[in-house]
Amino acid sequence: MKRILLTVEYEGTAYAGWQRQLNALSVQQVLEEKLSAACGHPVTVTGSSRTDAGVHALDQRVHFDTDCTIPPDKFPFILNNLLPADIRVQEGREVPAAFHARFLSAGKTYTYRILNRRHGSALRRNTFWHVPVPLAAAPAEEALRFLIGTHDFSAFQAAGGAAKTTVRTLSEARLAVRDEEWILTVTGNAFLYNMVRIIAGTVVEIGLGKRAPDAFDRAFSSLNRLELGMTAPAHGLELTRVYYPEKAFLDPESLRWHDPEEDVPCFD
Amino acid sequence: MKRILLTVEYEGTAYAGWQRQLNALSVQQVLEEKLSAACGHPVTVTGSSRTDAGVHALDQRVHFDTDCTIPPDKFPFILNNLLPADIRVQEGREVPAAFHARFLSAGKTYTYRILNRRHGSALRRNTFWHVPVPLAAAPAEEALRFLIGTHDFSAFQAAGGAAKTTVRTLSEARLAVRDEEWILTVTGNAFLYNMVRIIAGTVVEIGLGKRAPDAFDRAFSSLNRLELGMTAPAHGLELTRVYYPEKAFLDPESLRWHDPEEDVPCFD
Repeated sequence: MKRILLTVEYEGTAYAGWQRQLNALSVQQVLEEKLSAACGHPVTVTGSSRTDAGVHALDQRVHFDTDCTIPPDKFPFILNNLLPADIRVQEGREVPAAFHARFLSAGKTYTYRILNRRHGSALRRNTFWHVPVPLAAAPAEEALRFLIGTHDFSAFQAAGGAAKTTVRTLSEARLAVRDEEWILTVTGNAFLYNMVRIIAGTVVEIGLGKRAPDAFDRAFSSLNRLELGMTAPAHGLELTRVYYPEKAFLDPESLRWHDPEEDVPCFD
Repeated sequence: MKRILLTVEYEGTAYAGWQRQLNALSVQQVLEEKLSAACGHPVTVTGSSRTDAGVHALDQRVHFDTDCTIPPDKFPFILNNLLPADIRVQEGREVPAAFHARFLSAGKTYTYRILNRRHGSALRRNTFWHVPVPLAAAPAEEALRFLIGTHDFSAFQAAGGAAKTTVRTLSEARLAVRDEEWILTVTGNAFLYNMVRIIAGTVVEIGLGKRAPDAFDRAFSSLNRLELGMTAPAHGLELTRVYYPEKAFLDPESLRWHDPEEDVPCFD
């Protein structure tokens, strides 16, 4: 039995998210069906991130176990012939049996894209949130600086978030404005449910002047969801990069998995 | 009767091109249907460029005549409520009755996008040509310099091109390489049928080492289509910008239309 790690890119528009569900088509289900056909036995996959309906991934990482004889680096070729065009496998490699795509990840980068102009876009309709009212970049950039570092992000989650601890560390929270495109890049060790979309929604409300540039700082103190803006729509969000420590590939047993309930990496 | 000029963005994936056809859905047909519904009378539109099936437009310009009372700047709002999401109107303005979106255009910028990496992309599948073999940028960039200026582009057209003269002037032919993305930008006074796609196909063959960097120069001398590479696929191409002389909006009657058979502007 071998454990294989795939890098998977997908456009989330047509799917009910990453995770398998009963009555809706998920990326996981499509990938498992094609992998099962390729391997000749039922395959169950584990993804690094359970992206929501409409969210895209440039670098979802996915592991599974198989005893088939397909060389790991041939999986992209075989799967891309079977998969629909909105899912594409970029890489396949063998990893140790104790590797885990989700519980050993050391961090992720998400990108949130905003199109700030009067009328919506045809070409960017599935990957940008269209905000028709002019936004001011300076207060938004000022606000993002409060996010860097280790904070209690308890206010930054959808109602009903199940995380036991809500302390997270962000190493990057950056806004690049190119004409009418606002590209928000956020990197952290782990994320709460809807955390990046709440950050994006708050950035827009700050850019509109509806909230002060210290909104994030106040939410860290009050832990109150109401200090923050709306949850921005899913289709502007992309899982851009997933990080693992070098040891995850060499000696994963030396690493503690992070608690699935907490979804926070805890490496020694 | 007023003449209205619209700026229209579309993703060409679902359409048989710009121009109305008998048995296939075109962008022109969809736009004319929605405009006719909005104006309350049959509307025929004229586009600046007859883009092929699968080709996109960020800045197609379209004129039409109407006696309806809709203020010109309200057309984007009204039409975007009626149009499918892959067609979006960005601007509406009144122009003189002698304005012509096609025959008064002074030039256009096209963008051709190439994705140069092993496996195809899910997110960029409709807007990038996927070239899986590594390309060398330096010879491609060297080759593009030969395109600048006024030349006989007779070799740069699809078989059966109807143009009477094939002399065109290019002011820009630039390649920007960002990681695995190759973005080719070409600006000229007018273009022959498939001209940009033949340039893109030749750039790729030069990047592969299958053709020498002086291929364009040799094609100007020999006027032989065989000196050039394949016609690159339509879906990598975008009509990015259309230019008009200031006079086209102020005093269009003082300008000579360029001959539709030649499709070359001829301003005095």
